[in-house]
Amino acid sequence: MDMIEQIISLALFEDAGLGDITSESILPASRQGTGIIIAKQDCVLAGTQVARKTFCMLDPGMHIQMMYTDGDTVQKGSVVLEATGDLLCMLKGERVALNFLQRLSGIATLTKTYMQALGHSRVRLTDTRKTTPGWRRLEKQAVRAGGGCNHRFSLYDGILIKDNHIAVAGSIAAAVEAVQKQASHLMKIEVEVSDMEQVKQALSAGADVIMLDNMSCKAMAEAVAFINGRAVVEASGNVSLDTLHAIAATGVDVISCGALTHQAQAVDLSMQIHSLPGISNT
Amino acid sequence: MDMIEQIISLALFEDAGLGDITSESILPASRQGTGIIIAKQDCVLAGTQVARKTFCMLDPGMHIQMMYTDGDTVQKGSVVLEATGDLLCMLKGERVALNFLQRLSGIATLTKTYMQALGHSRVRLTDTRKTTPGWRRLEKQAVRAGGGCNHRFSLYDGILIKDNHIAVAGSIAAAVEAVQKQASHLMKIEVEVSDMEQVKQALSAGADVIMLDNMSCKAMAEAVAFINGRAVVEASGNVSLDTLHAIAATGVDVISCGALTHQAQAVDLSMQIHSLPGISNT
Amino acid sequence: MDMIEQIISLALFEDAGLGDITSESILPASRQGTGIIIAKQDCVLAGTQVARKTFCMLDPGMHIQMMYTDGDTVQKGSVVLEATGDLLCMLKGERVALNFLQRLSGIATLTKTYMQALGHSRVRLTDTRKTTPGWRRLEKQAVRAGGGCNHRFSLYDGILIKDNHIAVAGSIAAAVEAVQKQASHLMKIEVEVSDMEQVKQALSAGADVIMLDNMSCKAMAEAVAFINGRAVVEASGNVSLDTLHAIAATGVDVISCGALTHQAQAVDLSMQIHSLPGISNT
Amino acid sequence: MDMIEQIISLALFEDAGLGDITSESILPASRQGTGIIIAKQDCVLAGTQVARKTFCMLDPGMHIQMMYTDGDTVQKGSVVLEATGDLLCMLKGERVALNFLQRLSGIATLTKTYMQALGHSRVRLTDTRKTTPGWRRLEKQAVRAGGGCNHRFSLYDGILIKDNHIAVAGSIAAAVEAVQKQASHLMKIEVEVSDMEQVKQALSAGADVIMLDNMSCKAMAEAVAFINGRAVVEASGNVSLDTLHAIAATGVDVISCGALTHQAQAVDLSMQIHSLPGISNT
Amino acid sequence: MDMIEQIISLALFEDAGLGDITSESILPASRQGTGIIIAKQDCVLAGTQVARKTFCMLDPGMHIQMMYTDGDTVQKGSVVLEATGDLLCMLKGERVALNFLQRLSGIATLTKTYMQALGHSRVRLTDTRKTTPGWRRLEKQAVRAGGGCNHRFSLYDGILIKDNHIAVAGSIAAAVEAVQKQASHLMKIEVEVSDMEQVKQALSAGADVIMLDNMSCKAMAEAVAFINGRAVVEASGNVSLDTLHAIAATGVDVISCGALTHQAQAVDLSMQIHSLPGISNT
Amino acid sequence: MDMIEQIISLALFEDAGLGDITSESILPASRQGTGIIIAKQDCVLAGTQVARKTFCMLDPGMHIQMMYTDGDTVQKGSVVLEATGDLLCMLKGERVALNFLQRLSGIATLTKTYMQALGHSRVRLTDTRKTTPGWRRLEKQAVRAGGGCNHRFSLYDGILIKDNHIAVAGSIAAAVEAVQKQASHLMKIEVEVSDMEQVKQALSAGADVIMLDNMSCKAMAEAVAFINGRAVVEASGNVSLDTLHAIAATGVDVISCGALTHQAQAVDLSMQIHSLPGISNT
Repeated sequence: MDMIEQIISLALFEDAGLGDITSESILPASRQGTGIIIAKQDCVLAGTQVARKTFCMLDPGMHIQMMYTDGDTVQKGSVVLEATGDLLCMLKGERVALNFLQRLSGIATLTKTYMQALGHSRVRLTDTRKTTPGWRRLEKQAVRAGGGCNHRFSLYDGILIKDNHIAVAGSIAAAVEAVQKQASHLMKIEVEVSDMEQVKQALSAGADVIMLDNMSCKAMAEAVAFINGRAVVEASGNVSLDTLHAIAATGVDVISCGALTHQAQAVDLSMQIHSLPGISNT
Repeated sequence: MDMIEQIISLALFEDAGLGDITSESILPASRQGTGIIIAKQDCVLAGTQVARKTFCMLDPGMHIQMMYTDGDTVQKGSVVLEATGDLLCMLKGERVALNFLQRLSGIATLTKTYMQALGHSRVRLTDTRKTTPGWRRLEKQAVRAGGGCNHRFSLYDGILIKDNHIAVAGSIAAAVEAVQKQASHLMKIEVEVSDMEQVKQALSAGADVIMLDNMSCKAMAEAVAFINGRAVVEASGNVSLDTLHAIAATGVDVISCGALTHQAQAVDLSMQIHSLPGISNT
Repeated sequence: MDMIEQIISLALFEDAGLGDITSESILPASRQGTGIIIAKQDCVLAGTQVARKTFCMLDPGMHIQMMYTDGDTVQKGSVVLEATGDLLCMLKGERVALNFLQRLSGIATLTKTYMQALGHSRVRLTDTRKTTPGWRRLEKQAVRAGGGCNHRFSLYDGILIKDNHIAVAGSIAAAVEAVQKQASHLMKIEVEVSDMEQVKQALSAGADVIMLDNMSCKAMAEAVAFINGRAVVEASGNVSLDTLHAIAATGVDVISCGALTHQAQAVDLSMQIHSLPGISNT
Repeated sequence: MDMIEQIISLALFEDAGLGDITSESILPASRQGTGIIIAKQDCVLAGTQVARKTFCMLDPGMHIQMMYTDGDTVQKGSVVLEATGDLLCMLKGERVALNFLQRLSGIATLTKTYMQALGHSRVRLTDTRKTTPGWRRLEKQAVRAGGGCNHRFSLYDGILIKDNHIAVAGSIAAAVEAVQKQASHLMKIEVEVSDMEQVKQALSAGADVIMLDNMSCKAMAEAVAFINGRAVVEASGNVSLDTLHAIAATGVDVISCGALTHQAQAVDLSMQIHSLPGISNT
Repeated sequence: MDMIEQIISLALFEDAGLGDITSESILPASRQGTGIIIAKQDCVLAGTQVARKTFCMLDPGMHIQMMYTDGDTVQKGSVVLEATGDLLCMLKGERVALNFLQRLSGIATLTKTYMQALGHSRVRLTDTRKTTPGWRRLEKQAVRAGGGCNHRFSLYDGILIKDNHIAVAGSIAAAVEAVQKQASHLMKIEVEVSDMEQVKQALSAGADVIMLDNMSCKAMAEAVAFINGRAVVEASGNVSLDTLHAIAATGVDVISCGALTHQAQAVDLSMQIHSLPGISNT
Repeated sequence: MDMIEQIISLALFEDAGLGDITSESILPASRQGTGIIIAKQDCVLAGTQVARKTFCMLDPGMHIQMMYTDGDTVQKGSVVLEATGDLLCMLKGERVALNFLQRLSGIATLTKTYMQALGHSRVRLTDTRKTTPGWRRLEKQAVRAGGGCNHRFSLYDGILIKDNHIAVAGSIAAAVEAVQKQASHLMKIEVEVSDMEQVKQALSAGADVIMLDNMSCKAMAEAVAFINGRAVVEASGNVSLDTLHAIAATGVDVISCGALTHQAQAVDLSMQIHSLPGISNT
């Protein structure tokens, strides 16, 4: 069971693990039903595969027709997905599927807004590790659905040397050297810096990527000019719709932005389910 | 392992399951460190126990001192928690602990805003099942931390008869009867209705709680007057800070509000970690 | 994997997790077989779905025909179920399926005996939490198969205030108030009492259900008269086939009885399996 | 986590996995308590370690004092165990610990009754695989606590050739030969037979143990005489307190008896818990 | 999930649990492919079912055609298996399937070499518990594929009394007696001895199997002569291709040899995969 | 539970999950013991922490003293580790701990041999993904203990474009572009090539690392000269002790070598355990 199935499974368990006492008391066994998920507002979709998987984990025979896929922009009123199958399973999966879809589409929709604010800039907008615990892979896919890019997934698939590492190692150079020795030759080394002095140290230590952390736009522009293509430059901190344009204008290559995930709000989607009287699945 | 430990464990695994290549390359084994979590904005705290547990699952010997507890209002700049223990574990747990704390405190803070909008009303404000999949218990605790109440936890610990159930059963009366037969005598029966005719049917069927779904304030006030204490009355749908006061004024007993969880945004908290040079934990 | 699949999986693992050395040494791969489960005594069936699932977890292609369903009374000699599929899987599942079916049918059969002793009484006979650890959901279904009702499933889906709670809270009224504040408005509050003084306190505290614990029939009749419909009344303690009728005659609404599960003995069912020579499943 | 911890964990989860809403609403955090488990009838104890583990899995700091150990005969009124620790954990573990202890002590007590019926016979009384799914190891320990012996644990740690195996192999000799080739040289081979003709075949095929299945005492005595020490002889089928003595008198070496586990009923044990006011565990 | 599925699942997770970033960036969804596994050297195959299962756990619809089965000797250049299915799944499973197949075939191939060295000897060559942790069942099957036999699987399905047991018990006789009392009557008792004095003690204590541990061939021949069929005799220690023949010549019944598993090296097998352009699996 | 604990846990379960029937029959409860692990040949150690963890998972109170650490070269006869604790746990963990230690030290020892063959070359010698399924992290640590470096851990923490990817994408340039778009900016891109034409394409496509697959030393030297520092160059294929020196002489930066893991054989280590009479751990 992969991690996405684990989180769906945990979600189904917390909502319906010991049954749905209302529906189980009323529904005849094997009653079939059909349901549609409808967008109640304009949004960019994400999480459609999770929604599908949620229903299929409850009823492997559930037939799901997807009208849209992740990354599509849908208008208010659009039908996103139609499901036909065991009615009890559909009622058990409804809330969980919607809860996933609403939050993930919220992230994709917010990311799209940021991307539109960037306009034709060549800068790469990425997420961070400020994601909902247990949901990282899903939220990173939602960011891509909204047009953004992904930063490292975790602490083990990307190297980022921060102030604590530098303090323990003694210097940026010592930290970079220690990491070069241990890590695979397929990984770039990023160093987080906060002023020009550190930029110089990182560059001469051989950093592949330099993160300018919470620096002013003026200072970032100077750093970009100094680095002059010798390393990838990433801006981090205080990134919002208001500041985005100015940051991009400094010439950095990458802007990483935690708000894409931690400030996203659920978009409105709902499900309409109908019992198919007289039809059972046996 | 209970469900909260499961979600923490999943979160730690996705962030650091295969290690922290940067820190492991640089830190000497057994280096000790100390860290503080600081509020970067005024907020109501929730998730403090999860933050504590996150660090302790990585280093059972981590010493955690909590300056505040769930439900406390803290000012910008306040130190929320101080941790002392294995530095590598602290760096591994930092982001996960913050991700939990920021979102849960966001929910508590939003709930408190709603509670303040209600003023001295005797109405009970509750959450819904529109929670982050896998996080339900945590988010329901956060709602309580913000002064709100909880609706049913899941499909199995509370009965709510909706339109689909009524359609299959044939009538509200038939649905209520079916449920009474199957469910424990310790459970109340709630029926979701959308007009006065259904209110009457629910009442005569013996509903303990009647949910007025997406009804106008005028219609709700009439329903409350008609029911007249013979059932608990719950308002649902279109609940926001703007409408809250008017809904409470209809005389309903309970207002359930999905926005408490699905519209909450992370509050800003950060962690400052320091290595304790020369001190190892062996 | 839900909790029922977990217990089946645990059971299959303990019996055949590392294989069936006898059968694996002798049977050709893919040999097909057919088997029937026969009642060796009159009984009320329960656990038929668990038996089916046991075989299907070993061989998803196993074809199972159920001749009866949970709650049916079968005569000695009746064929309950016929299975056709991989012979090795059938031999591996045989003992586990029977062990489930025999104990659960034992509970259903005992419950039916109690229900018959109650005759036409309108009283509700329920189980308790005195169930086989790991089996609660299965045993509660077996009680329903025998005609009984279920009490709360667990500590989290029903409220029952006992002496310890009252002692800590200081009074019945304080305990009830504390619970009302925390619990969902969909839950009733039950208070366990042992004399008339406590009955009065529970009633005035707003208890929805009052449990008369180990009280004499005379005292219970007085309590019923005093309560007079203002709360549901439950009798508990010393419930056996001998006392059942007298307890029902006191006028209580509910009788809860641990013996339904903890005094049940396995009924006799066995399986006859035949190899289908020359037929393989590939 | 070994299999016993798995079943305890499953049991705790089903009873208190989402909390104990009554106690959590009323008890102050960290309240300490003390409790004793008392025998309400004479019995042979089994499951004392499981009871202890149940409490310790909830509160690793719980102090448990065992007054008796598995296999001890205790009188009505005896205190079996005293626990001191977190009161909430004690209330959560109470029912699960008792449910284990009551059923396992029921098996030990029933086994002791059978052993007493056997008197000074040198025959070995064993259990079978007719155990509660998920509980096999616990129930086999309970049989030993009552003075009985264990048959094979599962399908993989003992060889038993039955009619199906013989049918597929073509003959007892062919079945035994097939098994000898595959199995480790540390395993004996048992063959189930139903008449003297099969006894002879099993013996000449080299069976180490011969199970006389559902044969009359007369036929068993003849078989024992014929075998004359060349194989271990086991009697199986129709073993009850009534028939036990006669079966032992046939001279068989082993009597296996499913009733020890599947006919056992819970013995009566209860727990008295007291809050320790003013004492918290922090 | 049985133990073999657990180890496959762990292996797939460590290699591709968070995806295959290269292939996922390049391959269109649902692209089909076909692949063949080829022997790059002569070898005896083992692990073919694990290889098949690896692909099927990733894509249940993968079509696998096995050209050979475990135990077959294949020539360099032979195609062992052909798979057709989802290309992404095939690329994800390739390395894991090969890693299993290469090591297990290495064990089978080495075992075959030992068997050939034994020639027509009637001695039984077995493995030991010196297997790759987590792989025991697979490696024991590989030994059988190479023509060898299996010793006990684990500490719980076979009895082997060693020096520590004898020291604690006080004597071989006391150790054997203690085990006879506890263990099932279906288990033989093996005693490890290192000189003739211990051989005599083991024999008179009733050992079923006597293991001559690290004894010279001369001493083993004397022991065999002394035991003279009264117990099975096993030789252990210093077993290699060089010593095998001489050990067999001592007349022992069984030779156990850890080298079969711990000295085996992977044989060379590789996979050739082709994309099937224009064909998708939906 | 992290992945290393999972594999230890699986290993302990397969060896002792249902107990150690020999030891449990003989050893008094709580008997203490002491044991030492001794090198029976010169070797480089790896897996010392796994050995320690194995014992501690069985007995958290086991006291383990490590005389050496991973990477140390030990002489035949050296004591590697001394353990004191519960004797039964020590006997249960002995074989598993040794099985880990022997194979991992085998890898470290073999890697050291390769490193010594490289002499003072500045080339980086790395492992591959040809590791024992389930053991990757352990075996990669063992390679480092022997002085080698690690290649990517898995399919998700490093990018390697192979022939299949190029075929599907249409060209090396298209494949590189597709990956650049999807992957994090912290990852380098490696392309596997087999001739100079592909070297040129990879270089102009912007590959960070170029793997020369199965190319002759002459061709590799030409490629190194052509690339001239514009990308990291890795040699792969046909790497053995015989070819190592010549490959290093071509001027490549990295040599990756599957043999480090798949051709390693267990080194000889054994454990001597003594019971401490009269001392119990309670």
